[in-house]
Amino acid sequence: MNQVTAFSGRLAAPHLDRLRAAQPLVHCLTNSVVTAFNANALLAVGAAPAMVVAPEEAGPFAAIAGALLVNVGTLTAEQASAMRVAVASARQAGTPWTLDPVAVGVLAWRTAFCHELLAQRPRAIRGNASEIMALAGVAAGGRGVDSLVGSEAALAAARQLAEASGAVVAVTGATDFITDGRQTLAIAGGDARLQQVTGTGCSLSALVAAFTACVPDGVQAAATACALMKLAGETAARTSQGPGSFAVALVDALANLRGDDLAARWP
Amino acid sequence: MNQVTAFSGRLAAPHLDRLRAAQPLVHCLTNSVVTAFNANALLAVGAAPAMVVAPEEAGPFAAIAGALLVNVGTLTAEQASAMRVAVASARQAGTPWTLDPVAVGVLAWRTAFCHELLAQRPRAIRGNASEIMALAGVAAGGRGVDSLVGSEAALAAARQLAEASGAVVAVTGATDFITDGRQTLAIAGGDARLQQVTGTGCSLSALVAAFTACVPDGVQAAATACALMKLAGETAARTSQGPGSFAVALVDALANLRGDDLAARWP
Amino acid sequence: MNQVTAFSGRLAAPHLDRLRAAQPLVHCLTNSVVTAFNANALLAVGAAPAMVVAPEEAGPFAAIAGALLVNVGTLTAEQASAMRVAVASARQAGTPWTLDPVAVGVLAWRTAFCHELLAQRPRAIRGNASEIMALAGVAAGGRGVDSLVGSEAALAAARQLAEASGAVVAVTGATDFITDGRQTLAIAGGDARLQQVTGTGCSLSALVAAFTACVPDGVQAAATACALMKLAGETAARTSQGPGSFAVALVDALANLRGDDLAARWP
Repeated sequence: MNQVTAFSGRLAAPHLDRLRAAQPLVHCLTNSVVTAFNANALLAVGAAPAMVVAPEEAGPFAAIAGALLVNVGTLTAEQASAMRVAVASARQAGTPWTLDPVAVGVLAWRTAFCHELLAQRPRAIRGNASEIMALAGVAAGGRGVDSLVGSEAALAAARQLAEASGAVVAVTGATDFITDGRQTLAIAGGDARLQQVTGTGCSLSALVAAFTACVPDGVQAAATACALMKLAGETAARTSQGPGSFAVALVDALANLRGDDLAARWP
Repeated sequence: MNQVTAFSGRLAAPHLDRLRAAQPLVHCLTNSVVTAFNANALLAVGAAPAMVVAPEEAGPFAAIAGALLVNVGTLTAEQASAMRVAVASARQAGTPWTLDPVAVGVLAWRTAFCHELLAQRPRAIRGNASEIMALAGVAAGGRGVDSLVGSEAALAAARQLAEASGAVVAVTGATDFITDGRQTLAIAGGDARLQQVTGTGCSLSALVAAFTACVPDGVQAAATACALMKLAGETAARTSQGPGSFAVALVDALANLRGDDLAARWP
Repeated sequence: MNQVTAFSGRLAAPHLDRLRAAQPLVHCLTNSVVTAFNANALLAVGAAPAMVVAPEEAGPFAAIAGALLVNVGTLTAEQASAMRVAVASARQAGTPWTLDPVAVGVLAWRTAFCHELLAQRPRAIRGNASEIMALAGVAAGGRGVDSLVGSEAALAAARQLAEASGAVVAVTGATDFITDGRQTLAIAGGDARLQQVTGTGCSLSALVAAFTACVPDGVQAAATACALMKLAGETAARTSQGPGSFAVALVDALANLRGDDLAARWP
């Protein structure tokens, strides 16, 4: 029950191809640093991003979207209102929603808000080790938006959080772990430059949301997103001269990779 | 009267060269996803972008700007207040203002706001077919920020909207139509990758605003902006490997194209 | 006492290497146009950017950050509240804070706010000539975010502002001047394309803040940041085809330059 299974690109391949065909509408309530990058990452994989941010509009829009992303990186009181409305509407409409609990545990205000949202049954949660541990209530302590420990250290917390919340939990790092509390997949790979560009983690959460719109199995949905970002990072690293050109090549790679590429990388 | 005339790059060429010489100050109240891209697109064509967003400052600034852009993509109540103040000030000062009614018709709140703004005599309106139809009151129904129908389907609505509002209306798509209700120009061309990068439509609206600052003929102003974006897209497509590198090359092309290039492309 | 000394890359070289080793946490309250670019510039030089924007969180976060950046480019009332709280907290905790007074002097509201902040002992102030002159109370008159005069014209104002505020003042342009009122360094160089990309000045202010976190001498901290941006601009210009590819190459250069490169450029 506590085993970890290696990710299979062969199993994931159809999910990516399905996403490109389905072009799901992804409602993003995300942080102000990464809006454009999140939108371009979603467009690159074939999804249709829409940032509808006002409390007056977030509810109706979440109900018609294929998936909802909630990222608390630059949380404000007004944004929290919009998130509450959108999450309630998504839950009622059956729209799966994904939580990116940026820097939870570092600051009391967003920590309380994230715990409040947890009760609203997210389909998926994506964070680094510090964030997942803080959300699970075991230890805390990130540094700003960065984790101070490796993803392995958060595996038990991730399982515990998944069981308690009912969400699939993806704890990402050098190795990504994706778990629903019973089944756990591990994905090694990626590239260190993913840490040198702002918004790659946030964009990964947006991709997780996109996959939940068209892949019913939550572990498969989140894992396919994680693998796609790792492979895009590896691809981009081969042609870039620094983090600026890496970010550009990353978006190109997200657009150009197909299911077959996942299958070939993780056979 | 209902004829459509082909766009002439030869006629438009001097407008682009005039814009680069005049370097108009363009006040942007735009959505939070595209602020940087809008600013860089404006800088590329020689304009001076300025995002002055507070209700406390938007009025005085609109009065000294050469043009004002109002884009409701991520409308909030506070932003709506700033837009009301800026538009009123622009109108009083004689500053031409351009409306980008993102996703109007999809959500009731912004739809009501856009109709309210319409009464304030915009110089230009730029939208996709769904948006222009919704604003004209004929049918509706986009999907998020995307149009579900081609630009041809909105031509009658565009003419009707132009006559009712007094604005030049640009309905953009595979073919762009620019009309003041009497004269209508058509511009074919562009590249499909323009749809795969967030903010290209919004940046086109920013360019429309910039041209209204120095080209008195509204149809010519809007059409030159549309043609420039199409040609920049075609140029960028030739050297890019995906939407990331396309977006970079698009900004390069916007900076490097000259009036002669418009004349050569649409002789 | 009013002499100007040429910047020494040899003296500055260890500061850059120290920044990359120290990886200071830089709390940014910056404008909505440049958030991503500021974050990527900071990541490129090895700093850890964090945009914690709510009044509810800005105070505690400023206290644990290595440096704080306050940029008023898209000031709102809520952001002003967060800035007040963050600056007070930074001052109490001994966190150095840097002011970028974007467009001060052009609009009364932000001008009053900047003067209010001035009393809170910023470690550094970075602006163009018009901004520094307006902040010093001598003449005013920028045009939007652009200066209408060269940096030399603001040198006396910069010295006066430094003496009155206790801050190191960097007035940037074709030649950058960095002064604490007694010592003044001058740095020539850079590239005109730095003016054609939005947020390069704002990102320079973010780099100034980062250097204040690990270089005790304020003049050396600010001057190293200015020199680094100029050299990155020169480097990027050699491989770019327009402002789009220039911005990408600029981030690459910020990541790849080392202390030795500063020493070689300004021996």
